[in-house]
Amino acid sequence: MGRLVMKFGGTSVADVERIRNVARHVEREVRAGHEVAVVVSAMAGTTDRLVSWCREAASVHDAREYDAIVASGEQVTAGLLSIVLQDMGIPATSWQGWQVTVKTDGVHGAARIVSIDATDLLTTLGRGGSDTSAVALAAALEARCDIYTDVDGVYTTDPRLVSKARKLDRVSYEEMLEMASLGAKVLQTRSVELAMVYKVPLQVRSSFEPPDAASQNRPDGSGPGTLVCDEDSIVEQHVVSGIAYTKDEAKVSIRKVKDKPGVSASIFGPLAEADISVDMIVQNVSSDGETANITFTVARKDMRKALEVLQGLNDKVGYHELTHSFDVAKVSVVGIGMRSHAGVASKMFKTLAEKGINIQAITTSEIKISVLIDEAYTELAVRSLHTAYGLEGVN
Amino acid sequence: MGRLVMKFGGTSVADVERIRNVARHVEREVRAGHEVAVVVSAMAGTTDRLVSWCREAASVHDAREYDAIVASGEQVTAGLLSIVLQDMGIPATSWQGWQVTVKTDGVHGAARIVSIDATDLLTTLGRGGSDTSAVALAAALEARCDIYTDVDGVYTTDPRLVSKARKLDRVSYEEMLEMASLGAKVLQTRSVELAMVYKVPLQVRSSFEPPDAASQNRPDGSGPGTLVCDEDSIVEQHVVSGIAYTKDEAKVSIRKVKDKPGVSASIFGPLAEADISVDMIVQNVSSDGETANITFTVARKDMRKALEVLQGLNDKVGYHELTHSFDVAKVSVVGIGMRSHAGVASKMFKTLAEKGINIQAITTSEIKISVLIDEAYTELAVRSLHTAYGLEGVN
Repeated sequence: MGRLVMKFGGTSVADVERIRNVARHVEREVRAGHEVAVVVSAMAGTTDRLVSWCREAASVHDAREYDAIVASGEQVTAGLLSIVLQDMGIPATSWQGWQVTVKTDGVHGAARIVSIDATDLLTTLGRGGSDTSAVALAAALEARCDIYTDVDGVYTTDPRLVSKARKLDRVSYEEMLEMASLGAKVLQTRSVELAMVYKVPLQVRSSFEPPDAASQNRPDGSGPGTLVCDEDSIVEQHVVSGIAYTKDEAKVSIRKVKDKPGVSASIFGPLAEADISVDMIVQNVSSDGETANITFTVARKDMRKALEVLQGLNDKVGYHELTHSFDVAKVSVVGIGMRSHAGVASKMFKTLAEKGINIQAITTSEIKISVLIDEAYTELAVRSLHTAYGLEGVN
Repeated sequence: MGRLVMKFGGTSVADVERIRNVARHVEREVRAGHEVAVVVSAMAGTTDRLVSWCREAASVHDAREYDAIVASGEQVTAGLLSIVLQDMGIPATSWQGWQVTVKTDGVHGAARIVSIDATDLLTTLGRGGSDTSAVALAAALEARCDIYTDVDGVYTTDPRLVSKARKLDRVSYEEMLEMASLGAKVLQTRSVELAMVYKVPLQVRSSFEPPDAASQNRPDGSGPGTLVCDEDSIVEQHVVSGIAYTKDEAKVSIRKVKDKPGVSASIFGPLAEADISVDMIVQNVSSDGETANITFTVARKDMRKALEVLQGLNDKVGYHELTHSFDVAKVSVVGIGMRSHAGVASKMFKTLAEKGINIQAITTSEIKISVLIDEAYTELAVRSLHTAYGLEGVN
């Protein structure tokens, strides 16, 4: 029985009755002999309301004031949870940021944790930052970190899309990181990064399961939720662990660019300067042999700015046509087993081809393959791949 | 142009649009050359919601946690006001309790300010405590204190009851104190006490008046609102300044108590020990010449406890009958002029007698006379007295 950080999100603490349920989860761990620290979000809806007030107050607002306003939400939840725990006979005290002292890099609203110690002042960690706060606290306390959310673990794919999606017992940091950045919403990318760096075992589990101890032991011997951990701790490796998808990207195509050295730099340099991240890139020589077609994706929210930058480049770069499309989706296959198994990519391409789904762009990393497809085929692609990689029987 | 503390209540900051209006009042004073500190309440409704959550969390709750939760309301308003002011080009920073440091006597939820300096920690000052916070801050800064509320000043009586009630230009601390403790709701008793002790000039005014400077100068030369100040600063003294009333008290009658030495002590001693304040007391010998009837008032909320105490005393004290009534009202005439003018009381009794209103009990102080009457006659009594003392023409 060691140290444990328990983190509960906004829907888990949406009202006092749910906070009481959270307290029962905490009680179970305390009774089991753990030393427990709890990190809570603001009650669901609170932060949105506070942020909208800030926006109504002024279009550009002082980050220090913004932080003071928005942090009040977590302050209320922490206080209420302490009151409920005390009422159950469990000694509890709420601490606000300025009382605990987490060192961040000082960027208000999007601060990164530098270290946790007993000097300096807290700044908030951006929306939903409390996953990251919890992991940072666990790292500082050398504790395990249990993230309680409204789903009961990490699934092979989005269960709303694929009814046969299966909960994973364990998943490696690397895979979780890819899944999070590729669209899986269960954990924030930064909290997984931090857990990986500091080797914090991360358990994703549901706050809506019965909090009593008995129900924590499953008939099949599996624990509750999903453990995100070092890959060495995963005994039974799967080649592919999950299928992720995102509709957050959009496609830009530039046709008939003069195909000469430096043309890519002349396009992607200005985009980078405008702080626009480019994800997938495909470049190929066009039919006339003298010009190239370049296709790439940017975040949907960056599209307007990207087009402005590109239109300003036409004099210098010289292209025939600039088109863009929002009707695309990125579908990804993730698994650390890919490192040692060939044929993962070809199975993906074959599966999509059989369904008549055209691949518009491809990117790969050591443990994932992503393809860009017509948005209309997203569900079909995810379901077909989920079946093709045998994920329905993974648990 | 000196230092100024401006205080705005919950209805004055109920939404961002009203906070913007408050900011325009602040802007006016800053442009006029004042050094300004602003004290704000939580947005209307917020504190009630936070308090009800605390109650839902546990019947007995840790005062430290309660304070942390409830203080979040003011924190949000202060932050939003700063953002709005900055947007108007006025440098502004919000400070929370722990950043300013007000010394209180440490009683959570009902703390009294001991001093304001640069050590120790804030505890909240009870519901509506921010009037008192503002006066304490003004005392520490040697500043004037303007209390903005939803009425435009202190009236000769409740304008909802008497349409001819007139706003007072000036009123002394002593009179204001009596009026506040006798039922006038415009200022908290404790804030007036503190202002009197530290000689802080207190201006009561409306946040809903147009905030521009031009509208601050009245055609008749009077300033906005009501100034609560030392009586020496009031040139034109009135014998009576106002009529107050309260329905917060209830009456207890004990009939045919053995009339022997120590009987009062044997009744009021146990009540005091039970922390029940007794206000008006009438004792008279009953018709048989051997027993006495005792009538007194307690706060309505204390009645149940008072009856329990008194029922337990019957063996020892011995009385014939114990009755109580909630159908009473206390009506008071207040004015520092009473000190030097005779006939104020007799005018009060005569006026009430003419309307057929029976007086059940009387208490007097140097500057006020209060009578207990049947609650049904409250409005009639207040209106008749208001006319009798010529208050309609006071302004």
